[in-house]
Amino acid sequence: MGLLDNIRSPEDVKALPAEALDELCREIREYLVASVSEHGGHLASNLGAVELTVALHRVYDTGRDRLVFDVGHQCYTHKLLTGRKDFSGLREKGGLSGFPKPYESVHDAFIAGHASNSISVALGMARARTALGADYDVVALIGDGALNGGMAFEGLSDAGHSGEPLVVVLNDNGMSINEGVGGLADMLGRMRTRVEYIKFKKWYRGSVLPKIPGVTPALGAMKSWLKERIIPENIFDNLGFEYIGPINGHDIHKVENAIRWAKEYGSPVLVHVITQKGRGYAPAEQAPEAFHGVGAFDVKSGVPKYTGEDFSSVFGRALTEIAGQDPTVVAITAAMKEGTGLIGFQEVYPDRFFDVGIAEEHACAMAAGMAAQGLKPVFAVYSTFLQRSYDMLIHDVALMGLHVVFAVDRAGIVGRDGETHQGVFDLSFLSTVPGMKIYAPASFAELRSMLRKAVLEDTGPVAVRYPRGGEGPFTEDTSAEASLTVLQGDDVTIAAYGTEINEALLAARMLREEGVSAEVVKLNVLSPLDAEPVLASLRRTGALIVAEEACAAGCVGEQLLAAAEQAGALKAARLINLGEGILEHGDPALLRRERKLDGGSLRAAVLEMLHGKDET
Amino acid sequence: MGLLDNIRSPEDVKALPAEALDELCREIREYLVASVSEHGGHLASNLGAVELTVALHRVYDTGRDRLVFDVGHQCYTHKLLTGRKDFSGLREKGGLSGFPKPYESVHDAFIAGHASNSISVALGMARARTALGADYDVVALIGDGALNGGMAFEGLSDAGHSGEPLVVVLNDNGMSINEGVGGLADMLGRMRTRVEYIKFKKWYRGSVLPKIPGVTPALGAMKSWLKERIIPENIFDNLGFEYIGPINGHDIHKVENAIRWAKEYGSPVLVHVITQKGRGYAPAEQAPEAFHGVGAFDVKSGVPKYTGEDFSSVFGRALTEIAGQDPTVVAITAAMKEGTGLIGFQEVYPDRFFDVGIAEEHACAMAAGMAAQGLKPVFAVYSTFLQRSYDMLIHDVALMGLHVVFAVDRAGIVGRDGETHQGVFDLSFLSTVPGMKIYAPASFAELRSMLRKAVLEDTGPVAVRYPRGGEGPFTEDTSAEASLTVLQGDDVTIAAYGTEINEALLAARMLREEGVSAEVVKLNVLSPLDAEPVLASLRRTGALIVAEEACAAGCVGEQLLAAAEQAGALKAARLINLGEGILEHGDPALLRRERKLDGGSLRAAVLEMLHGKDET
Repeated sequence: MGLLDNIRSPEDVKALPAEALDELCREIREYLVASVSEHGGHLASNLGAVELTVALHRVYDTGRDRLVFDVGHQCYTHKLLTGRKDFSGLREKGGLSGFPKPYESVHDAFIAGHASNSISVALGMARARTALGADYDVVALIGDGALNGGMAFEGLSDAGHSGEPLVVVLNDNGMSINEGVGGLADMLGRMRTRVEYIKFKKWYRGSVLPKIPGVTPALGAMKSWLKERIIPENIFDNLGFEYIGPINGHDIHKVENAIRWAKEYGSPVLVHVITQKGRGYAPAEQAPEAFHGVGAFDVKSGVPKYTGEDFSSVFGRALTEIAGQDPTVVAITAAMKEGTGLIGFQEVYPDRFFDVGIAEEHACAMAAGMAAQGLKPVFAVYSTFLQRSYDMLIHDVALMGLHVVFAVDRAGIVGRDGETHQGVFDLSFLSTVPGMKIYAPASFAELRSMLRKAVLEDTGPVAVRYPRGGEGPFTEDTSAEASLTVLQGDDVTIAAYGTEINEALLAARMLREEGVSAEVVKLNVLSPLDAEPVLASLRRTGALIVAEEACAAGCVGEQLLAAAEQAGALKAARLINLGEGILEHGDPALLRRERKLDGGSLRAAVLEMLHGKDET
Repeated sequence: MGLLDNIRSPEDVKALPAEALDELCREIREYLVASVSEHGGHLASNLGAVELTVALHRVYDTGRDRLVFDVGHQCYTHKLLTGRKDFSGLREKGGLSGFPKPYESVHDAFIAGHASNSISVALGMARARTALGADYDVVALIGDGALNGGMAFEGLSDAGHSGEPLVVVLNDNGMSINEGVGGLADMLGRMRTRVEYIKFKKWYRGSVLPKIPGVTPALGAMKSWLKERIIPENIFDNLGFEYIGPINGHDIHKVENAIRWAKEYGSPVLVHVITQKGRGYAPAEQAPEAFHGVGAFDVKSGVPKYTGEDFSSVFGRALTEIAGQDPTVVAITAAMKEGTGLIGFQEVYPDRFFDVGIAEEHACAMAAGMAAQGLKPVFAVYSTFLQRSYDMLIHDVALMGLHVVFAVDRAGIVGRDGETHQGVFDLSFLSTVPGMKIYAPASFAELRSMLRKAVLEDTGPVAVRYPRGGEGPFTEDTSAEASLTVLQGDDVTIAAYGTEINEALLAARMLREEGVSAEVVKLNVLSPLDAEPVLASLRRTGALIVAEEACAAGCVGEQLLAAAEQAGALKAARLINLGEGILEHGDPALLRRERKLDGGSLRAAVLEMLHGKDET
């Protein structure tokens, strides 16, 4: 690690002789594999972007220039080169985030996590620079997967038209998270392999473009003439970008030269860089999708250290089984085939499986079209990414009451991916969607039953929300009822849903030891909410705790309070939830404790409330 | 009206001899101008699409084939030709909707209203057809403005890759709602005017394409060779569509032929049709943007019958004034320059005005980038379209606490545009956005003051939400307080915000005459909510009515109930709101009465509640 040890800031990267860069990249890869194998994280995308990131730091001054990452899970090398070499607490509370965070370093220009926003953000920054007469450069780094997202197209269209000096680096590994899907991926594939095109471009770049900075009217006209008549256009040219590429993304000198040229060009430029996901680590090169987001693994074999059943895999198998009984059931994912557990479904029913790429808006509207014509589409999507479909949920699905099922994965506290990935808003925004039914299974058995009801029995829009990871001690199936008492008691009512029910039951057990008898009501359907079992319980206990992994605004607790108020059954209440909904990265159990949602904290809240009640 | 009189269904359109079609189109235009001049509605876009719509009905059987409109305000001719010729109640309760509605006719395949979803919906339908072995054709009709929206790109990318037989008709009037903006519009402009390109295409179509249905391998290869080497590619080719065009959209025979050919082609085809917005009515041809959505007007002169100050125009002038005092203030619109009242701003500050086209996601993320680098962006957007930005509100703006101001126009009951355009969800979804401050002005004076605070004094994300139309009797400025008592009383507390305050005050006056003393509390800031004036009032009255133009889930009333519950101050309560939030088209005052939000209904609710209270 001789070279990397001496890199303390991007200045040190710039100072290295060109011939040392390949060795630096090798050392970075070694460090990345060692760190991620220990802590888990995103690996394949980071290994692919090593040379690209080093090149960006040779060209730009990220303390002043603005480097906007898209998605951002490819930022590890960037962190290493900007004074953040301590990966020992990666993705843990107090340690480095796995994503760019402006609060962590001035070198992180903007937050990242969701896809396809980088061009928009970069254009906003470029326009601010121009409007305020400031002097810095702006560069967006976007992958081919994120480029499929509609917002990236909106950004390209506006940026290309704007003429703002701005560079978009397209990190094209031909994979996005899975292999490329969609017409855009097909086009990039053709561009990658079309030799003639590359030769044209090479000649064009070699003989025409270098003269551009001191452009003469004649040369400008020639350039336009050439572009319009001889050089085949592509989508980027079409939208007003100067396109250069494709460039071998592991030839650091070529990449550096291209980016340097683009930076000086003075109008929107797209640099198309071809990289290999997992580059330099054999297991990841061979199975890049398996090394996208990983837990700890053995470096030598590439074998994960921990595996286990989780809600996603249970969902995938259950849906495959349901599809076997009803030929109208189809599955949709937006580039999350592995994460949502749908690989098995695709193998069994390839014609009934639709991976639309990173395109949650399209996925939702397309599902609506399918439902309108007699299919039963199930869109499996992470809670945080379903935020993208909010308008389509209302406009395309709900206004017509169409039967689309949303399998909302990673609902609640997600943990190590941090602020941008927590699933804490879905309950609130789904509750506003007209006619939306929302199930909250707490166990694998309940997920299976509720999914079956949602797909085969319900009508209209339905969501089944379940957390990241596995089930807890509660493994029963209580799905026959919308809400029910799972533990009887007289002193206080604790209402909870999803796997939080485990904490409620734990608190009740702890309280019993102290002579406090807690009743636990489990909510299975969150909308429309059946508050009656809670109200019945409150008529006896008079005291309510609602514990939920959801933001405060629009939470179930507020609904229950309002219902209890109308019923006149309440003497004391505490709503325990995630407040504004911003949770940093860290171990989920730790985050749960911090937010007072663990059994011990619920116990304490009950005691404090009952004590307070005595005083009133 | 000889021909139109005899058109009772699309069968009659198909039966007409080709030489009669121009006359039919002339009659349709005359009818459209007469109807819209009387009732208001969308005019310019409908006048542009007459030949196109007639051609679609010559080729397709819309009772079985699925014609998916995008946005849908260009559907008037379609309604005329599908048995809906009574325009006397257009956009009024019980009359025809101004948008496609499947509940109105089997010929309306899908709902429309928001932009850019048609390709996604059509692809879903095409996939359902294939999966279920059904036999119908699917065609999407999308304008150039809607094509700029990212979801349309997502749809094109997936559809082009899918190979599903599917036709997308691009109705390109080079205007969207204003003149075209963005790189996509630039590209379409080049395509429209590039003679060489058109000549190539003409030859290509004339000599190669007609042979395609009985395609031989050699011809297929020749086609690919031609496409890749000689015919310049465009974005549609790139994404996997067969492109034909551009075609003169007012030459009905050419349009019919092109669509007929596309329907038979057997894979995704895009037909690019050039039309003129406002075609055939001189005032609309000269100022198409003024005749986009209009009220009643004089046919001869084209002059609107009613004009008046409204919240939008007050907003536009106020923002222009604020921008004069702070050079960092910039304005953003997503293709709604006229509707949001920003024309004056653009004239005074052209360099600080950004129309990004139909691209609400991009607009929001771009605003975040601007704010991160020192500008004060104000994104003026209709409530219903801001639903598109929900994820960006959280991810790009709120997680970093950026100071972006959202001028949320058309919040609350919007009226004649119907279900797809009511502004009834913004309060709920904005409340979930971390740190979002929400102002609700009730008067022009308050809009001016609150906007000034939002832009110049507040930090972090801020929204100012105001209704469509003008102010009511309440014209004061109470913005100095977050909530306040505007009328004192002892028997009941009525809480309201925005122009609904007029109804609350009216109810209070009516109640006074009957000896009931109502206190009216006006809420100026809805999040964070200052419930104290309401609670203070409740300690005296014990009875609460909350009246709001918002959906029930996540409404302010629920928050107030929860707060009152915690304060133990409540004996009776009624929440009066818009329930699930689906409101059909009609006069806003009528919709308000139907939903019991008018003064008379509030009075009745109070009496019923107080009467009920006596019995408890």
